[in-house]
Amino acid sequence: MKNVLFKHRSIRKFRPTPIPEEVLGNCLEAATRASTCGNMQLYSLVVTRDKALRERLAPCHFNQPMVVQAPCVVTVCADVHRFTMWCRQRGADPAYDNFAWFLNAATDALLAAQNFCVQAEMHGLGICYLGTTLYTAAEIARILELPKGVIPLTTVVAGYPDETPEAADRLPLEAVVHYEKYTDYTEAEIDELWAEREESELTHRLLEENGLDNLAKVFTERRYVRSDNLAVSEAYFALLKEQGFFNK
Amino acid sequence: MKNVLFKHRSIRKFRPTPIPEEVLGNCLEAATRASTCGNMQLYSLVVTRDKALRERLAPCHFNQPMVVQAPCVVTVCADVHRFTMWCRQRGADPAYDNFAWFLNAATDALLAAQNFCVQAEMHGLGICYLGTTLYTAAEIARILELPKGVIPLTTVVAGYPDETPEAADRLPLEAVVHYEKYTDYTEAEIDELWAEREESELTHRLLEENGLDNLAKVFTERRYVRSDNLAVSEAYFALLKEQGFFNK
Repeated sequence: MKNVLFKHRSIRKFRPTPIPEEVLGNCLEAATRASTCGNMQLYSLVVTRDKALRERLAPCHFNQPMVVQAPCVVTVCADVHRFTMWCRQRGADPAYDNFAWFLNAATDALLAAQNFCVQAEMHGLGICYLGTTLYTAAEIARILELPKGVIPLTTVVAGYPDETPEAADRLPLEAVVHYEKYTDYTEAEIDELWAEREESELTHRLLEENGLDNLAKVFTERRYVRSDNLAVSEAYFALLKEQGFFNK
Repeated sequence: MKNVLFKHRSIRKFRPTPIPEEVLGNCLEAATRASTCGNMQLYSLVVTRDKALRERLAPCHFNQPMVVQAPCVVTVCADVHRFTMWCRQRGADPAYDNFAWFLNAATDALLAAQNFCVQAEMHGLGICYLGTTLYTAAEIARILELPKGVIPLTTVVAGYPDETPEAADRLPLEAVVHYEKYTDYTEAEIDELWAEREESELTHRLLEENGLDNLAKVFTERRYVRSDNLAVSEAYFALLKEQGFFNK
């Protein structure tokens, strides 16, 4: 069954056409149908369509043009704030300001986000997740005025595609699936799993552009380098505490 | 467009019929089509069908019968181990043993899991996520022999449904969606958002069963109580360090 899920491509160029209200509403409704921990819906979706505000968000996403170009930017947040407010108003004693509930809320939020994306693609929209959200989560939280108990996890840009890219290649299925238990990889298996990608035209182009001798180094020396990774880890963990997800 | 996403119900009773190999394979393929950080596919799906092994996993899920009843139990894991092995074999310097990359890997894993579930439901299968995974992640990691760099996030049981439950109710859409920026809730709004649920028959039954005077207390005093929440937070954070996701 090669359906909508198999047609997914990340879209990075959008037409300016706005998303009709009823289409957007339907995608957001679809998001809420995803499974959620104890039916608590521990997430918020901040839908930014105002251009001036998208322009303020753009630097948080390293000025990738799609943040301004796409008519709709959805910041996906873990949210224990709303549920906590409700508990307090009922004289109950909420204890969701901790790491376990960050994880529950993040799970809720990401399942909802993926439903949003699948439904958007069913409507002919294109989407792209922005991993940059983790890099600049504190600044995004400031711009979007997120209260304590709410923290950004990822961002989805959505709109009508202005490009028709090829689907991204993936590792062979056996790379990510283990039967019964986890079976650790041998060196030879790792070589085999990456062989096709390492020989691809895209890889050859990347190596030439970057002046590097293998694809792994494109990741470790260009895209996701040690010092950035550690800085992001530290900053996000600090924000987690600041937003009240790590109280004892 | 009221499609498969709107038909989702969590299924907790399954027929023993196994999932045909090609159907399961197709759902797993669909999982890999989800967006992934830098196309790194930082997740593993551990598919446990062996009954003896599912029986060993059952206590980790508080002996919910579906873990033994459903023919297929998928433990969804964040995985930076495979990518790190590849980098090392290429003489590259991987730095994915930190919190930022736990978050990237968790995002990858959960988007893939949701694609798996959507595709499973397209095939007429039923699914249920097991939040118990976070409670007993260390024991699950032991049973499934997860190496460093791999950590369980959630579990999906899948199989042919032996029940046809109603769809769960959800809060009104405006509860979880914010336009432009986050708009904090007034007390009156919180009351309004929960009003329908608080008046439902299900709520009345729960209050009677639990001898409590409001629904919020069912959550805080019965389902997810402070001491458990803090214990899970501490245990999972310790496991995160043990599995090498919090190295400096």
